[in-house]
Amino acid sequence: MCESNVYLKEGENETLIMESVDSIEPCENGLKLMDILGRQLFVPARIKDMTLLNHRIVVEKLS
Amino acid sequence: MCESNVYLKEGENETLIMESVDSIEPCENGLKLMDILGRQLFVPARIKDMTLLNHRIVVEKLS
Repeated sequence: MCESNVYLKEGENETLIMESVDSIEPCENGLKLMDILGRQLFVPARIKDMTLLNHRIVVEKLS
Repeated sequence: MCESNVYLKEGENETLIMESVDSIEPCENGLKLMDILGRQLFVPARIKDMTLLNHRIVVEKLS
């Protein structure tokens, strides 16, 4: 399966905020995440970087 | 493998601009894409949406 984990980076710290994310949709004030079970999460953040082979997406808070 | 294909959406059309993308890094004026062979591509675009299980990332030109 090719879902990714989404981490929120704050300074040097990274916190796992959602596992097994399938879809990401940037919107005006942040990101809509949905995992493989259909659970949805909104985070007021933007994508910082992602490496899909590592199943890893890093987001940072919108300033 | 969990790489994705990146499509540029213009109006109703979608054009495949890079296959087998591993990493995406948003930067000031667009997106830096890198595929699994290390080839890099810059596109003046932003992420519109992505569905990782479908290996599909859609971007749109920055206005």
